[in-house]
Amino acid sequence: MGSDAAQRLNDLWGEVADIGTAAALLGWDQETHMPAGGAAGRASVMATLAGIAHAKLTSPELADAIDAVEDEAGDDPVGLAQAREARREHERAAKIPEDLARALAETTSRALVSWQNARAADDFGVFRDDLAEVIRLTRERADALTDGAGNPYDALLDEYEPGITEQSVAQLFEGLTPALSALVKAVAASGVAVDESPARGEFPSARQMELGIDVATKMGFDFDSGRIDKSAHPFCSSMNPGDVRLTWRWDETDFRPALLGVMHEAGHGLYEQGLPPELARTPIGGAVSLGVHESQSRLWENLVGRSRAFWSWAVDPVRHAFPDHPPFAVEDMWRALHVVRPSLIRVEADEVTYNLHIAARFEIERRLVRGDVTVDELPAVWDDTYEDLLGIRPQSAADGVLQDIHWSMGAFGYFPTYTIGNLVASQLYEAARAELGDFESAFEEGEFSPLLDWLRDRVHRHGSRYLPDELVDRATGHPLSPEPFLTHVRRICEDNYGVTA
Amino acid sequence: MGSDAAQRLNDLWGEVADIGTAAALLGWDQETHMPAGGAAGRASVMATLAGIAHAKLTSPELADAIDAVEDEAGDDPVGLAQAREARREHERAAKIPEDLARALAETTSRALVSWQNARAADDFGVFRDDLAEVIRLTRERADALTDGAGNPYDALLDEYEPGITEQSVAQLFEGLTPALSALVKAVAASGVAVDESPARGEFPSARQMELGIDVATKMGFDFDSGRIDKSAHPFCSSMNPGDVRLTWRWDETDFRPALLGVMHEAGHGLYEQGLPPELARTPIGGAVSLGVHESQSRLWENLVGRSRAFWSWAVDPVRHAFPDHPPFAVEDMWRALHVVRPSLIRVEADEVTYNLHIAARFEIERRLVRGDVTVDELPAVWDDTYEDLLGIRPQSAADGVLQDIHWSMGAFGYFPTYTIGNLVASQLYEAARAELGDFESAFEEGEFSPLLDWLRDRVHRHGSRYLPDELVDRATGHPLSPEPFLTHVRRICEDNYGVTA
Repeated sequence: MGSDAAQRLNDLWGEVADIGTAAALLGWDQETHMPAGGAAGRASVMATLAGIAHAKLTSPELADAIDAVEDEAGDDPVGLAQAREARREHERAAKIPEDLARALAETTSRALVSWQNARAADDFGVFRDDLAEVIRLTRERADALTDGAGNPYDALLDEYEPGITEQSVAQLFEGLTPALSALVKAVAASGVAVDESPARGEFPSARQMELGIDVATKMGFDFDSGRIDKSAHPFCSSMNPGDVRLTWRWDETDFRPALLGVMHEAGHGLYEQGLPPELARTPIGGAVSLGVHESQSRLWENLVGRSRAFWSWAVDPVRHAFPDHPPFAVEDMWRALHVVRPSLIRVEADEVTYNLHIAARFEIERRLVRGDVTVDELPAVWDDTYEDLLGIRPQSAADGVLQDIHWSMGAFGYFPTYTIGNLVASQLYEAARAELGDFESAFEEGEFSPLLDWLRDRVHRHGSRYLPDELVDRATGHPLSPEPFLTHVRRICEDNYGVTA
Repeated sequence: MGSDAAQRLNDLWGEVADIGTAAALLGWDQETHMPAGGAAGRASVMATLAGIAHAKLTSPELADAIDAVEDEAGDDPVGLAQAREARREHERAAKIPEDLARALAETTSRALVSWQNARAADDFGVFRDDLAEVIRLTRERADALTDGAGNPYDALLDEYEPGITEQSVAQLFEGLTPALSALVKAVAASGVAVDESPARGEFPSARQMELGIDVATKMGFDFDSGRIDKSAHPFCSSMNPGDVRLTWRWDETDFRPALLGVMHEAGHGLYEQGLPPELARTPIGGAVSLGVHESQSRLWENLVGRSRAFWSWAVDPVRHAFPDHPPFAVEDMWRALHVVRPSLIRVEADEVTYNLHIAARFEIERRLVRGDVTVDELPAVWDDTYEDLLGIRPQSAADGVLQDIHWSMGAFGYFPTYTIGNLVASQLYEAARAELGDFESAFEEGEFSPLLDWLRDRVHRHGSRYLPDELVDRATGHPLSPEPFLTHVRRICEDNYGVTA
């Protein structure tokens, strides 16, 4: 990328990336530090930056620079990837008419408020009209993206997970949902009640913070190139590989949310810190997709953080952090960390049931986008789907159709990336084991670098050079499959509940 | 401002203001929260935003909108003020060629580093070449601003304090410097040593924080529309009147820096929180000048925070915050807060000597800009000037010419605004007393709203509708004068040292 054309693309793209970074910092600040009185002024700053980024992303100069880079790339895979990613974002932005973009911004900002009110009042009716309008505009957006031909839901999915389609996601769920549904029902029928007391007690937040920072540091998260703050909902936000920010929250009666939460966010953070610095501010400098991002957080949270090997080490730091907490056996902690219980709320779901929550949303939103389900039918369809997949039925809209923020933001096509993340995590973990042998025994010494180094090499350092599918295939030697994940959850159900399905 | 032209100007200006707000947040974050690894990436984001703001500020659309607003303003003072302020900034930006702006940005960013190194090594030679280049480019900038005619230093001063000139500043110092110099020498000769023990001891930072927040709240600073964080150098940064951010630092052996520091920054913050919300994002929505800004901080720090009336109230909260600190009489605290001592370092200077530090800088930089002093002569000229004005001579460059960051940033013409701030503060305070009577007795009850309300009415609510001179004249009934300030410091010297001069 040393040519004039490449330099021109990088200069233009660098400005778009810089504006994105400024917006990311504004967003981070809004969730962590902004005083309440700053909200109104903040909204206009965000809108101005979005408008400028859109203008730059759709500019003819950028289109020319992309053409030039593609023309001269020949067989150079990096040049081709730069042109591909830049074109992808340029075209997506250019296809949305300005009127539609503005209508979506206005409607979703209104819908966010009515969603919050509806949820607080447990009344779907409060959200109904705004949601209907969001769906209408989202369909319009999908039509614009597909030029009125092709599958609109594909266009929505592609925004978060380049290259996936409704059909490929449906295929994944076909291999996953029946097996999970059967497992969950078998666990419910087993009558086994797991003792969760090893994870419960009194855990002062200051001690939880120290423990969490200690664990994230051991994982390899570099606090000289990152930080952690409190927020209502945990997230990871990156300015650049040298400035990656995590957030968390605590439950003073249960240390699992903070500890596993920080491992989850630090997993995202390790990916961001491991992105190639030499590609920063270029079209392929960022993370490849939401699904692959989620694979990194889930891998550290669930496959490392809940493992027996991790706990063989963690038992000491936990004892040190909470000296009044009764001693526990590693196996008992393992059991408390692998409770399986059908529940109504996605964000509280365990590893085994989690993807059933996503399966439900995928089924519902593809029908919504297709027009097979109306907004008025939505609450009942939601409840029926839960009963079908999880064997339980919401008794209120707040515990059902109103629980997620995503649709109020127009984020249709986002949910499947959570399941993709879970599947990729297991597939990567299995591939690492096949290649490295027993890296888990190092966990017992608080040593995670063999695993991290492997992830750096197979995932992080590539940025968005490959499409997600290709990245997974190259990293693991196989196309994405539900099998490694199913093997993992079957083991949980067998070890903890004595059930197979 | 309801016309089409006014709307167009506000739309265009709003974008410039929004970019400025994003940059302000990035700057705040850099000093308070950014991890070390974020520095490199942050610089490019700042440069991109600066470039975009410059392009928008110099655009022909904006120039047209300004013309249109001016044309139709007729006698409407608000419309005329909007056009005046917008044109001022538009023309300043348009007059600086892009090459020069880039050269200045590059040179000052290099000079900042060499200044830091020079200061650490106590070696002016390390800074010499970069400073020479900054001065050369600054002269070029001043010539561009004056179109090669007129006084270049006037053009530099005008950036920070619209309307002031080298001559008007020189006149202020003529009325100020000899009197201060005589006072300081008389104090030094008095042989009186003030007991500072009431302010010294052990003051845990957590308690200092609680006390500082309590005092700022009493002053009227609204923490729902603001916050406070730690930083190496205290400052106030505002996103909008609903989001105003203060910073501070502590000395655990002396509570004065934190307490008076927070009153200083909260004074700035009250001005920002009191700016007219209906003028936000318009050309006259911001603070009028650095000098008037500094008047607000100095007024609260020095005229309120060091007053006997304030301490009649503060003695209790201080006792509560530091129960181990020995009880003190209000008069003894007053004395400890009014120590006068010629010193080499500006930022540690007391109220009486402070403006002599500024007088020195003003004399030196006007000669530098005029070309009467060369960079190589600078260290000796600095030391001579200090000996002349303060009666003491720096023994090292670090304690002399290298102490301030300003020149490394190309901020020539900035220093005088500190003195203007001190003078305006005293003049406002005297005018408030003449009008309101004894508002200080309310301080004894921890009640500051009569004073704040008066400042809101006379200063804050006007934004930049008036030029600084006019604002001061309208607020106090008189043009700016050194007399109220001199009356104030003469009283200090007489009460604490028994000297008159």
